[in-house]
Amino acid sequence: MIISEEAALVAWSGMAAPADEAAGGLVSSIGAGEALEWVRWGARSLPAAAASLHGRCTREVAEAAVLAHERWERRLAVADEPHWRRATAVGARVVTRGAPGWPSALGSLGASEPFALYVRGPADLDAAWSQGVAIVGARSSTAYGSHMAAELASGIAATGRAVLSGGAYGIDAAAHRSALAANGLTIAVMAGGVDRLYPAGNDALLRAAMDDGAVVSEVPPGFAPHRSRFLTRNRLIAATSATIVVEAALRSGALSTARHAAGLLRPIGAVPGPATSPSSAGCHALVRDGVAVLVTRVEDVLELIESATEWAERDVGEVEPLGECGGGRFALPSFDFPADRAVYDVTSSRAITVERVAERAGLAWIDATAAAGRLEMRGLIERSKGGWKRTP
Amino acid sequence: MIISEEAALVAWSGMAAPADEAAGGLVSSIGAGEALEWVRWGARSLPAAAASLHGRCTREVAEAAVLAHERWERRLAVADEPHWRRATAVGARVVTRGAPGWPSALGSLGASEPFALYVRGPADLDAAWSQGVAIVGARSSTAYGSHMAAELASGIAATGRAVLSGGAYGIDAAAHRSALAANGLTIAVMAGGVDRLYPAGNDALLRAAMDDGAVVSEVPPGFAPHRSRFLTRNRLIAATSATIVVEAALRSGALSTARHAAGLLRPIGAVPGPATSPSSAGCHALVRDGVAVLVTRVEDVLELIESATEWAERDVGEVEPLGECGGGRFALPSFDFPADRAVYDVTSSRAITVERVAERAGLAWIDATAAAGRLEMRGLIERSKGGWKRTP
Repeated sequence: MIISEEAALVAWSGMAAPADEAAGGLVSSIGAGEALEWVRWGARSLPAAAASLHGRCTREVAEAAVLAHERWERRLAVADEPHWRRATAVGARVVTRGAPGWPSALGSLGASEPFALYVRGPADLDAAWSQGVAIVGARSSTAYGSHMAAELASGIAATGRAVLSGGAYGIDAAAHRSALAANGLTIAVMAGGVDRLYPAGNDALLRAAMDDGAVVSEVPPGFAPHRSRFLTRNRLIAATSATIVVEAALRSGALSTARHAAGLLRPIGAVPGPATSPSSAGCHALVRDGVAVLVTRVEDVLELIESATEWAERDVGEVEPLGECGGGRFALPSFDFPADRAVYDVTSSRAITVERVAERAGLAWIDATAAAGRLEMRGLIERSKGGWKRTP
Repeated sequence: MIISEEAALVAWSGMAAPADEAAGGLVSSIGAGEALEWVRWGARSLPAAAASLHGRCTREVAEAAVLAHERWERRLAVADEPHWRRATAVGARVVTRGAPGWPSALGSLGASEPFALYVRGPADLDAAWSQGVAIVGARSSTAYGSHMAAELASGIAATGRAVLSGGAYGIDAAAHRSALAANGLTIAVMAGGVDRLYPAGNDALLRAAMDDGAVVSEVPPGFAPHRSRFLTRNRLIAATSATIVVEAALRSGALSTARHAAGLLRPIGAVPGPATSPSSAGCHALVRDGVAVLVTRVEDVLELIESATEWAERDVGEVEPLGECGGGRFALPSFDFPADRAVYDVTSSRAITVERVAERAGLAWIDATAAAGRLEMRGLIERSKGGWKRTP
């Protein structure tokens, strides 16, 4: 049975756990349709896989075929469920990866880019993600935190940018509500399906968000908001142009969103608060650790976004093929800064001095040094003998 | 009339305005006694000065002699006042520059190092300055700010370190008071003479500080706390091992202390507060601009001091002679980090690459880069052709 790529992506959205990088890598490499065929008919052993693949692929590809079969065969029933029909029933549209309207900013997620988004509301998701700002924070916010979330959200909404958040109580709700009050767009990214507006206490708020904005999820309708889905959901919020943490205790989920944003090299702002307030301790830690910039006014946030937009407007290097097979490819790390790719390209398992890196990459040493610092932060390269080498 | 260096330093302390770098440079170059003679008998013209100096000095020295005469001759009457006697009368001791007990940390001030300190109280000033922490902030502090100043001061006092501040209302008073309550040492640095405990409302607090700590000033008793003396006084507070700004509006005097500390490469901490509080706006600006580290607990402060102590324990390069004359010398910039001096020494008016800098200075390039960054911040060197050169 041959199905469209779009239908295959929808199947994968219900079959693989969100942010499953094995599934993501496989789909990126050989396409959603062929990947689905591997799950369906893939061999149970390496020789059988190699035979069924007619020797046209490498050992790695054969291994991926076996893994896919082992891992997802039992979930094929889930994949076959009529996600599309149920989405329509709850008034949601489905946007699949790469289709018109797909938020290109999600491409930064690499192998954990979602397969599809289920969307209730008319918002232009591509614009919302590329220009919007995430405002996140504790559910148990203080009056001060809610005030700051509202201040920043209304200022951001006034610039025509979307305010993204997770639809939860506390900071999230204050941000959504204030964006709406300013006649702005707001996007609530759900951990479960868009048929259940969670938490129930925010039902009216989330419905209001759908008028001009959207309620969005990467899992099909009917899926429950499990705990693990909250953590993986955070990466979608973090993929917007900047993330602002308003109030967060030291073990707050908002810090996971900030960590995701840091991994994506997105700018992060943190709102300070009284040193005596546990609700601000996470924000202070982000600033102290150099993860976030301290922001107190919407002007500070707009300054952060400007620097991000500047980079987004430059050419982003294409992902290079690594082991061709069936027209597909395995993914290399993605880079938001062109200099990062250039520096990564000239590093290897042998140490190389920064001067040499700069020369080979065609960069001023100051830019090469900055790029090396970012790559080191991502764990892609490490210091060695006064220079740099790729992390084994 | 030949007077002792000590007496001459005391004379200078009453004659030159605090932080007058011309006076400081002259005294550093040829000694306080000879500098005083120049003021007294120095010629009114360059040829006359050259003649009276018997041709043993350069043109620069002759120029300095003329300048000293022009500038301070009329103040000789002030210099001759019996500062010492008046100090004794108010129960103060006089510690002159370089004498036993002189705070060596003040040497970082270079040409603006004070000539003498007038001290009421038994504290070991050298230990207080080299290990103590300055806690400064707004006079019009909030209850939150006073609470934080007290928290940090009592934590610092508990480690046996002195708490330095300016004796003012608000944050200063909260810091002094809390250090005393913790049975710790506190040093109040006055803008005017130590005979007037200013402000009068803090009289009892400042008297309590004298029991084990000290009230200190660089101007002789009888001198009024003029506005300009507050600003120059701040540099003395900033010369301790670390400065913590607790609450400061955007145009607060506490920010001048922080700027002085930054110029001295001392670590600076700033306590965050609500983004809505104007009393915290100065602290937030310091953090945003990368001048201060965000601190919320005494542990954060101790971490800051540790890094400072580590450096202070290394050998600090001697100030090099520049144009010898009469056994004296003119001062070069002073360096708190040995690497800074090493890097400065190998730079010149011609650009040099960082690799070359590192090689010649005998440093790892990462240390050379860091040092170059600090020197750039101080305006001593600048970027040129992908490398560095001295600022003209």
